[in-house]
Amino acid sequence: MLTGRHLIQPDDLSVSEIEEICSLAEQIIVDPKSFQDVCRGKILATLFFEPSTRTRLSFEAAMLRLGGSVEGFSDADNTSTVKGETLADTIRVVSSYADVIAMRTPKEGAALLASKYSACPIINAGDGGHYHPTQTLTDLVTIRQLLGGLENHTVGFCGDLKFGRTVHSLAEALRHFKGNKYIFISPKELSVPDYLITNVLEPAGVQYEIVESLDAVIDQLDVLYMTRVQKERFFNEQDYIRLKDSYILDSEKMKLARKNMIVLHPLPRVNEITPEVDNDPRAAYFKQVKYGMYARMALIAKITGAID
Amino acid sequence: MLTGRHLIQPDDLSVSEIEEICSLAEQIIVDPKSFQDVCRGKILATLFFEPSTRTRLSFEAAMLRLGGSVEGFSDADNTSTVKGETLADTIRVVSSYADVIAMRTPKEGAALLASKYSACPIINAGDGGHYHPTQTLTDLVTIRQLLGGLENHTVGFCGDLKFGRTVHSLAEALRHFKGNKYIFISPKELSVPDYLITNVLEPAGVQYEIVESLDAVIDQLDVLYMTRVQKERFFNEQDYIRLKDSYILDSEKMKLARKNMIVLHPLPRVNEITPEVDNDPRAAYFKQVKYGMYARMALIAKITGAID
Amino acid sequence: MLTGRHLIQPDDLSVSEIEEICSLAEQIIVDPKSFQDVCRGKILATLFFEPSTRTRLSFEAAMLRLGGSVEGFSDADNTSTVKGETLADTIRVVSSYADVIAMRTPKEGAALLASKYSACPIINAGDGGHYHPTQTLTDLVTIRQLLGGLENHTVGFCGDLKFGRTVHSLAEALRHFKGNKYIFISPKELSVPDYLITNVLEPAGVQYEIVESLDAVIDQLDVLYMTRVQKERFFNEQDYIRLKDSYILDSEKMKLARKNMIVLHPLPRVNEITPEVDNDPRAAYFKQVKYGMYARMALIAKITGAID
Repeated sequence: MLTGRHLIQPDDLSVSEIEEICSLAEQIIVDPKSFQDVCRGKILATLFFEPSTRTRLSFEAAMLRLGGSVEGFSDADNTSTVKGETLADTIRVVSSYADVIAMRTPKEGAALLASKYSACPIINAGDGGHYHPTQTLTDLVTIRQLLGGLENHTVGFCGDLKFGRTVHSLAEALRHFKGNKYIFISPKELSVPDYLITNVLEPAGVQYEIVESLDAVIDQLDVLYMTRVQKERFFNEQDYIRLKDSYILDSEKMKLARKNMIVLHPLPRVNEITPEVDNDPRAAYFKQVKYGMYARMALIAKITGAID
Repeated sequence: MLTGRHLIQPDDLSVSEIEEICSLAEQIIVDPKSFQDVCRGKILATLFFEPSTRTRLSFEAAMLRLGGSVEGFSDADNTSTVKGETLADTIRVVSSYADVIAMRTPKEGAALLASKYSACPIINAGDGGHYHPTQTLTDLVTIRQLLGGLENHTVGFCGDLKFGRTVHSLAEALRHFKGNKYIFISPKELSVPDYLITNVLEPAGVQYEIVESLDAVIDQLDVLYMTRVQKERFFNEQDYIRLKDSYILDSEKMKLARKNMIVLHPLPRVNEITPEVDNDPRAAYFKQVKYGMYARMALIAKITGAID
Repeated sequence: MLTGRHLIQPDDLSVSEIEEICSLAEQIIVDPKSFQDVCRGKILATLFFEPSTRTRLSFEAAMLRLGGSVEGFSDADNTSTVKGETLADTIRVVSSYADVIAMRTPKEGAALLASKYSACPIINAGDGGHYHPTQTLTDLVTIRQLLGGLENHTVGFCGDLKFGRTVHSLAEALRHFKGNKYIFISPKELSVPDYLITNVLEPAGVQYEIVESLDAVIDQLDVLYMTRVQKERFFNEQDYIRLKDSYILDSEKMKLARKNMIVLHPLPRVNEITPEVDNDPRAAYFKQVKYGMYARMALIAKITGAID
């Protein structure tokens, strides 16, 4: 039963709840018209204390396509917090107006804090380096729709695996489904954190490899999950420049990959996937954007109680 | 008949019109579903020439919950006024698109000016130190809902009574209802202005007291209206620091108050009410937020003609 | 058949398509209720990479009055482009969420570029000095509604005819309709560009005059199209100051004009039309604002396929 629930981190959802959301997303994809009025009369508040146009518009489109309405703000400049108000009060106020809140902040833990004071469900739309659970739902819906299920895949994660929270969350989520194998592909400096290996994957008995070369393993992959090397995560400019181009996916590399591999990316991309790859049928990162909207539709319909 | 009317200052409404709006608000509170389509096809424009997220979102939620739509802007940076356009022209243009306008500006008198040029009703959502009539409606709806009526209350106004426009407006509005008594509680420097006493309350025969100690009078109150001591109203930092903490409501003071007293606050609060008071059943300032939305729903439904 | 089409420049529309949109606009003006649900379930994304409140609100009101929804942003500060994303990717993403996009940018050619990557129709809402085709549709709907048709008019264009893209576009569009004659009224420094005369008007056999005095020709005009002398188009402050007041329309000049002449202006105006003219029945620039909304309603209804 998801009605009234908060979604702060991916692990807030059980495996069966993930399946439930993915199934509903699939129903919506197949027949969107049947869902276009289920949230009529309901309001989503999008509270974006830092800008993230892509995520905000995805949430808003999701609510609008369910027949609901949207209000909110797109950056912190215009909020009462500048008048010294606490986050707790802001949330108490906004949750008096809205039926569900999607919030984005640069501060780790802010969404969890907000959920303590909210009169309506909170969806974490990213809290700094912590969590972004609807990106994980997006990734899961995409893999399920394009590969027919969430089990028995070899998934390559490539790029910045140290700071990439989407990678950590997806790796955590997929460990619940049997037969998945991970290959982590990155320079040593951006390698996947130890805690993920030791505390999360090994206890779950997930098979994994850690490698430095994309070319060497690309032919084994069912899913290649590319990530952006984010300048803002680096301590100095030199390291950024040296590493940012290390793992660029181009047509040459795609020739080595399987015919039915899919390429995912949380976007925005800068140059880690060359534009020539966009026309490759295996490039699935723009389909993933659309599936993200459907994943959010399913989630919103569930937690607002529009759909049991 | 409120259809087509502007609301620039609280006194634009007669006592019977206030009653009419409060009654409609009550009907909406009891049965919101019956009103969820009454503004279908109508547009509210929120023109916020200075940011006020709380007020803007309350107006927008009000219109959306009536089935209407919303468009607008949340600060002046993005407006044509930067191209040298007059307010008159901006209003003539926007009122061609919208059915009702809620506008907020830092300039006293701007809403009145706007109403001269508008093709649709203007609701003043705050014009500098002047008026904020929907806050007054919010306060009235709250008192009526929680105390069963608007007569025979002893109302304590506490904090910054010099610059606090919400205090002035509520004191003016309540004078129309019989048997109300006011106790003004503030340091001398922030005392209620003479004009309010001399020109407004005394001609109406309102009983009032002016005191400096909250502790000394709190046990007499039916309503305690707390206000924020706003830094931006002070001429120097020192006065602000000395006075800002003078009138803080905490659990100790609440022990002295009546069991059925209600605490109101226009929000945002900074530290004038300690968080421990939030859990006291007499703390009504978050309920007040919700009543504010219903007050605005009633007002919008009336002046757009959605409800006679 | 306009369904699914982009509108980047006025010439993207054939004469019969212009007629089709003008006719639909007229039907909407006559009976707006019949159209208030035709876009139910559809989303307009307003991507304004530079602020233009008037144009944005007109588009949004148009979509809302058709029963559709709106999402977007009002300036570039909050967009993923600051993270290094290309316009192509931004458009691919947003067109996954929306059914139609209205975009405004300071860069010439950006809307055309966007249309190459979009999964839904793009409406150019202004790309720098290039095009603003819905302003042209606005002008055409206005002339047609107020003068009964688009043929056999003497149209005076006055003010900044060098940089005024609305003038160039309207002059181009009206050349398709028979019997129209143009009088270009400006100081030499701001005269209509040669290419317009040589490449557009002369091949079409349009009659025109180039004059410097408004007084001398105003009595011949059916339409007087005034324009703002935009500071940002000038290379130095002195030229701007010398020329900006050269062609001011006031009551004195209006006395020389015909009784049924109409005065148009794309707005915002600064001082090129004095406020006293606003009350003259021939002043049509605020009606033009309203017709602009209807023109956009007709366009959106057509290209989203809501109306064949």
